[in-house]
Amino acid sequence: MNKVRAKPIAVRGFKAAGVHAGLKKEGALDVAVITSDRDCVTAGVFTRNQVKAASVTFNQRQLQQNPTGIRTVAVNTRYANALTGEAGVAFNQAMAEAAAEQQSLPVSSVLVMSTGVIGVLPPRDKIFNGITKAVERLGDGWEEAAQAIMTTDTRHKIASIEVMTINGPYRIMGLAKGSGMIAPNMATMLGVIVTDAKIDASTLNSALQTANQQTFNRIVVDGDTSTNDMVTVMANGASGVTLDTPADVAQFTQALTAVCELLAKAIVRDGEGATKFITVHVTGASSVEQAEKIGHTIASSALVKTAFFGNDANWGRIIAAAGRAGVAFNPDTARLWLSAGESPHAEDESPGLLIFDRGQSPAYSEQEATAIISETDVTVTLYLGDGTAEAIIWTCDLSHDYVSINGDYRT
Amino acid sequence: MNKVRAKPIAVRGFKAAGVHAGLKKEGALDVAVITSDRDCVTAGVFTRNQVKAASVTFNQRQLQQNPTGIRTVAVNTRYANALTGEAGVAFNQAMAEAAAEQQSLPVSSVLVMSTGVIGVLPPRDKIFNGITKAVERLGDGWEEAAQAIMTTDTRHKIASIEVMTINGPYRIMGLAKGSGMIAPNMATMLGVIVTDAKIDASTLNSALQTANQQTFNRIVVDGDTSTNDMVTVMANGASGVTLDTPADVAQFTQALTAVCELLAKAIVRDGEGATKFITVHVTGASSVEQAEKIGHTIASSALVKTAFFGNDANWGRIIAAAGRAGVAFNPDTARLWLSAGESPHAEDESPGLLIFDRGQSPAYSEQEATAIISETDVTVTLYLGDGTAEAIIWTCDLSHDYVSINGDYRT
Repeated sequence: MNKVRAKPIAVRGFKAAGVHAGLKKEGALDVAVITSDRDCVTAGVFTRNQVKAASVTFNQRQLQQNPTGIRTVAVNTRYANALTGEAGVAFNQAMAEAAAEQQSLPVSSVLVMSTGVIGVLPPRDKIFNGITKAVERLGDGWEEAAQAIMTTDTRHKIASIEVMTINGPYRIMGLAKGSGMIAPNMATMLGVIVTDAKIDASTLNSALQTANQQTFNRIVVDGDTSTNDMVTVMANGASGVTLDTPADVAQFTQALTAVCELLAKAIVRDGEGATKFITVHVTGASSVEQAEKIGHTIASSALVKTAFFGNDANWGRIIAAAGRAGVAFNPDTARLWLSAGESPHAEDESPGLLIFDRGQSPAYSEQEATAIISETDVTVTLYLGDGTAEAIIWTCDLSHDYVSINGDYRT
Repeated sequence: MNKVRAKPIAVRGFKAAGVHAGLKKEGALDVAVITSDRDCVTAGVFTRNQVKAASVTFNQRQLQQNPTGIRTVAVNTRYANALTGEAGVAFNQAMAEAAAEQQSLPVSSVLVMSTGVIGVLPPRDKIFNGITKAVERLGDGWEEAAQAIMTTDTRHKIASIEVMTINGPYRIMGLAKGSGMIAPNMATMLGVIVTDAKIDASTLNSALQTANQQTFNRIVVDGDTSTNDMVTVMANGASGVTLDTPADVAQFTQALTAVCELLAKAIVRDGEGATKFITVHVTGASSVEQAEKIGHTIASSALVKTAFFGNDANWGRIIAAAGRAGVAFNPDTARLWLSAGESPHAEDESPGLLIFDRGQSPAYSEQEATAIISETDVTVTLYLGDGTAEAIIWTCDLSHDYVSINGDYRT
């Protein structure tokens, strides 16, 4: 399998465009349309927040009623259209109808995504004109589309991969946005993934669930879960490569996971105010759930995140966070290492500088620890001594800029 | 019942002192001793973190073995003596022995509290000399003792109350510290409460559990739970007032709760970097647990807390936080009000400016909302429309200073 890359790639049958519709300031792109020239088998994962934007419930219904006939996604930023009541539901419906009409498609083939401020009804004319403009420009505008879905993101996020099979190659490309309100159980994010592989709906759904669980569900910026989160995968089969053996499906799931992982990590790297990318690798667990819970609690701790911002290798806060994760944790069997870089270490490699060893801290060089934690990419490896399961969670530090960005978002 | 006051009061049979033992810089007080002239019935509540400091497990054992014979508490700050291994356990034992020896008391009558940085063994000589010095000065040094238990606190915290009964008055006084690592399930805090009421051990224990659940368990600064949290109540009976009727016990529980509430609120007001005191009042719930969970999730949300810091009445973040609390929440039956001041409103009063009303935001003056949220004390009232249960959670905003304080704690 080729390596996943942070660049667009042509995926047969798909077109995209991103335009400025006047929602953001200074000409920034704010409306995107992505369209396939034929029906797509489509799967989606959605926020678990009980407060759901109009677009979330709309798309859930669309996928339930027409999982093999989706053609297009229309996205607006700046306005989440969440908690906007009946008027918001009506707006969402009208936005779908506009996207359908402009492309002479049935409304049943349209998905809608919205992101931005909660509780404000989006401006109808601007968005509808934006959709018209985007449809006119549909082409290879993937970077523009990725830019048009950004909110507080500072960089657009694209991942692509080409997979070789004995029947020829197929491709997967994903766009995502997300920077704040990022938490376990779907970050606050939107993701649109397209592929020209031919795959049936239930297999596509399982592949997305698997990929999502190991990527978007394992990132933390600030612990808040959004009302608008969703990731969809549209498969139009245009490559002519049919995935029907278990090996094909496994390969597809792996490639899809690689695309999602690159996007998920890009979201953390671009986390609001983030100055560091932190990999929390919990090993030696009795179950994946235990490893995930402990990893999430460490990754979400304000005290751990501010210590990283301050280049302070404060292992006490990491162990204390593990102790309140709500699952078994015994400090007397736990060990903790720090290392530079983003990759968790392989079995036969050293996980770095040992800074906590079964109940207490060994003699170690604080200077060395400070040097490691002062890097941009830091890996924390926590061995629980409870079993062989593991999980990796990605997070960032908590900085002054996070406070500035979120103290001043609406104004 | 008299009103609780934020001042010391003489409580018969108890003495206190706080001294500088050289742990903190610039002569700041850092070791405290509190002693009763006779045996105390004593109850305690302790951290639920699975990582417990040596002092926590030590005191739990002491209270189990000798719940009616406690005489003294020795406290040091700057060093938590948590995750310090066997050497830490031995240090804690030696510290108890020193406090006992200096006062010619049995070791079985001593409690020990430590707070500060995790993972560093405290300096033995300094602390032992501090205990000697404090014992020599035992008297009415309550303010000094309250100062000596502070870490990042900027103000010491004292609450006292006198309760009249037909058999005469008794008094309750509490000291507390805590400013960061403050979370549900016992804030990161120490509390020592003394009373000259005469009460049996199991009744005292129930009263403390009740008071704690409604006060220290309902405050949030940063969502982290410490390894060292504990609150003890020592009752020496010196007032001669015996609490044996249900009415006496109810009155005592109410007075103890008032003392704990004043201390708990003082901790939130002094929260690291806090610029605002926020009361989250969740009403109309189907159960207290539902109200507590939703209140805690709102009070812990980094996005809600930064919005408060930015004087942004961002109700969307509040409703979104409620939606991810892990308990039932229906935005279509919920209503949200903002008001200035710390007191939740009585049944027959207006809860303030309605900013969210069953699924959407009503027309309201953003200017008025901004004026309210710009106050130092703000109350958020969230009505769930699910029943009649309620809970109040106290929290503060998340500011630049929180990041500065915690990015730079050890250095």
